Amino acid sequence: MSDGIIEEPETSVDSWDTLAPEERVKYFHGLPYSERDDFFLALSARDQAGLILALPEGERRIWMRLLPPDDATDLIQETPEEERAGLLALLDDSARREVVALLAYAEDDAGGLMSPRFARLRPDMTVDEAIAYLRRQAEQVETIHYAYVLDSEQHLLGIVPLRRLMSAQKDQTVREIMRTDFLSASEEMDQEALAKLFSQEHLLAVPIVDKEGRMKGIVTVDDIVNVVAEEASEDIQKIGGMEALEGPYLQSAFKEMVKKRGGWLAALFLGEMLTATAMGYFEEEIARAVVLALFIPLIISSGGNSGSQATTLVIRAMALGEVRLRDWWRVVRREFAAGLVLGCMLGVIGLMRILIWQRVFHPYGLHYMLVALTVAASLIGVVLFGTIAGSMLPFILRGLGLDPASASAPLVATLVDVTGLVIYFTVASIIMRGTLL
Amino acid sequence: MSDGIIEEPETSVDSWDTLAPEERVKYFHGLPYSERDDFFLALSARDQAGLILALPEGERRIWMRLLPPDDATDLIQETPEEERAGLLALLDDSARREVVALLAYAEDDAGGLMSPRFARLRPDMTVDEAIAYLRRQAEQVETIHYAYVLDSEQHLLGIVPLRRLMSAQKDQTVREIMRTDFLSASEEMDQEALAKLFSQEHLLAVPIVDKEGRMKGIVTVDDIVNVVAEEASEDIQKIGGMEALEGPYLQSAFKEMVKKRGGWLAALFLGEMLTATAMGYFEEEIARAVVLALFIPLIISSGGNSGSQATTLVIRAMALGEVRLRDWWRVVRREFAAGLVLGCMLGVIGLMRILIWQRVFHPYGLHYMLVALTVAASLIGVVLFGTIAGSMLPFILRGLGLDPASASAPLVATLVDVTGLVIYFTVASIIMRGTLL
Repeated sequence: MSDGIIEEPETSVDSWDTLAPEERVKYFHGLPYSERDDFFLALSARDQAGLILALPEGERRIWMRLLPPDDATDLIQETPEEERAGLLALLDDSARREVVALLAYAEDDAGGLMSPRFARLRPDMTVDEAIAYLRRQAEQVETIHYAYVLDSEQHLLGIVPLRRLMSAQKDQTVREIMRTDFLSASEEMDQEALAKLFSQEHLLAVPIVDKEGRMKGIVTVDDIVNVVAEEASEDIQKIGGMEALEGPYLQSAFKEMVKKRGGWLAALFLGEMLTATAMGYFEEEIARAVVLALFIPLIISSGGNSGSQATTLVIRAMALGEVRLRDWWRVVRREFAAGLVLGCMLGVIGLMRILIWQRVFHPYGLHYMLVALTVAASLIGVVLFGTIAGSMLPFILRGLGLDPASASAPLVATLVDVTGLVIYFTVASIIMRGTLL
Repeated sequence: MSDGIIEEPETSVDSWDTLAPEERVKYFHGLPYSERDDFFLALSARDQAGLILALPEGERRIWMRLLPPDDATDLIQETPEEERAGLLALLDDSARREVVALLAYAEDDAGGLMSPRFARLRPDMTVDEAIAYLRRQAEQVETIHYAYVLDSEQHLLGIVPLRRLMSAQKDQTVREIMRTDFLSASEEMDQEALAKLFSQEHLLAVPIVDKEGRMKGIVTVDDIVNVVAEEASEDIQKIGGMEALEGPYLQSAFKEMVKKRGGWLAALFLGEMLTATAMGYFEEEIARAVVLALFIPLIISSGGNSGSQATTLVIRAMALGEVRLRDWWRVVRREFAAGLVLGCMLGVIGLMRILIWQRVFHPYGLHYMLVALTVAASLIGVVLFGTIAGSMLPFILRGLGLDPASASAPLVATLVDVTGLVIYFTVASIIMRGTLL
């Protein structure tokens, strides 16, 4: 957690992304000495890593040692494997031990966000002793807003919010004022679950304990703000129909980006080929009533759009914990009703469109009324199907242990396209039998 | 900012959403007295509002008065207009004045997130005096992690992080240790911009000042975590092709939800009608070569999918500030290259598919090679167009002062569908002239 007070960002930092490594070094060296540390600390871990690696080796140490261990860990995680040992060697022994320990955690675990530098108290201190002791620790710890009360085996006994300590009587003991009804998290807790905890409980920091209840470190809310944004980015990119990128768009390697988009695009394309197969079955119908072909894009895209709405709603509600797996039946009922209303709405608009066009331009021939009815009825069926399929796919994926966000708008559209064609031609063959077909 | 230490959530809170108002009251009354306040404070503003309104009038006051003014404001904003005066009347005079002042700010402004209860110091206090003074204020303020140094006209002179105060010498003055190079925000700053500031600068709290530099209040990071999640939800729902809902999915009124989805769905449908018009122009071609119709869904959906990927990438990058309006040319070049690579990839897959099917099932007649080449060339054109259109639409919307997230996957798909048909039939008429057409 930083001091929270930082100079107004330079306008030139805005264009930082667009600078080549040498230009970054030049800009950095151009800053007055007194501003360089604030500037460096304000950079993201990724940008810090880029800058450090661009600096001459002799200059790297002071910047590495400026960082607290959790930030140094983040920086090292942003560097290529072969550079890591070199950067680690720049740290002092104690910081290096901490960073090596933190590097052992997966990046997405609570342990990976954790800082080992927290404020400690003993339970038998008085309030005045505790305040004096915290004043001595203040420079070294990540946050002094909470002090963690540990026994001699490092078991976490309680937490003292600084606010409570400050307003307590001088002669009370830490044990008397500490809170024992606190939340803690395990080292393996997923960072997304941890973010949900912070947001629901309005926490500033959470202690991380091992299975024996021994305190390992703390995760602070400033790291969580970034986790929330990162997880949302991943979901948004998946909803857009691609694998999530690992870094900012403009900084992602072109090859990585094309790979992450191409994989899904090819998979969707293979799925979409079923439309050509389905259309093959209806080739004769199309030849007999070409007018049917005119509405194919309109019908299948309406199913895709309504499915896309339903799937994004459900994915986001799941990500925020508003909807759980067991809510599926409530969602089905709700989406069935919504799909029916929306389908009827589009059906009426479609019907009107064809009748008005027929009045004005006469494009649809003698049986225009049958065409109009076919389109309207198909729209109701396709929108209803799209809505239900779109809302249920995230449940199915989660039920299978997959990420519900993979039920992207394009995936749902692809699923619905094939079914939409079948619905459309089935409805047509019922309504038009004996006339056009 | 809460104490940050709260009991383990009851498992039954998980199903809180599913309870009717009476059941919530019953559950709430079933809790031991000592647990009710923690339970109430841990609820979201929306749930607090629902519970308060379900409680008998005589019981409401203690719960309203339990809340700090910014949380009371949030609660009141979640209630229907006609209930607000009644709830305001329950507050004591001083809290009511603060809440009324906060209610004047738009919900999405910095002012709407602000708390007027911050820790104050005078510049000429000594460190020891300041600590003693803060200990007296600790119970009343939103956070004591920063103390704000004000002159007699409430102008903000500097900020003292508690950590710095705790580690300073006893006889230094506040003026000597305060930081004067701090960030502040105006009352009108948009909450999304504010969230970006918190995330980029790793802030815990930001002071809000008026045009004359007078301190109005503070915004703390715990409110920002929710803002980040809310803004991401809005973007995700817009990307899915609908207006953003105001509350959680399952708690949104059915009518509101259908309206927000139906509006966009109808607009997209009207746009998609252009496909029927476009198809009308090619009716003769389809009649002559029905085989062309078979690949229409495949072609247009490939354009929609690649456009959806590009638009979500750019929307998210814009929301995070990674891409700015002036970066449009860099994005065009990047997306042109990506679109070309992806288009060629799909073109090759499409070509293979047709040639293999022809080998095995002979469905495409004598001129199957022309069909295959038409499909492959169209795929390259459509994917390239979809990618560029999808990536540029957010820029155009932002340039017009609109929300780039409205460039939803369905909107891009609709745009690309019409163009895709034109590309496909144009390519067909060039390649097949004199043979099939």
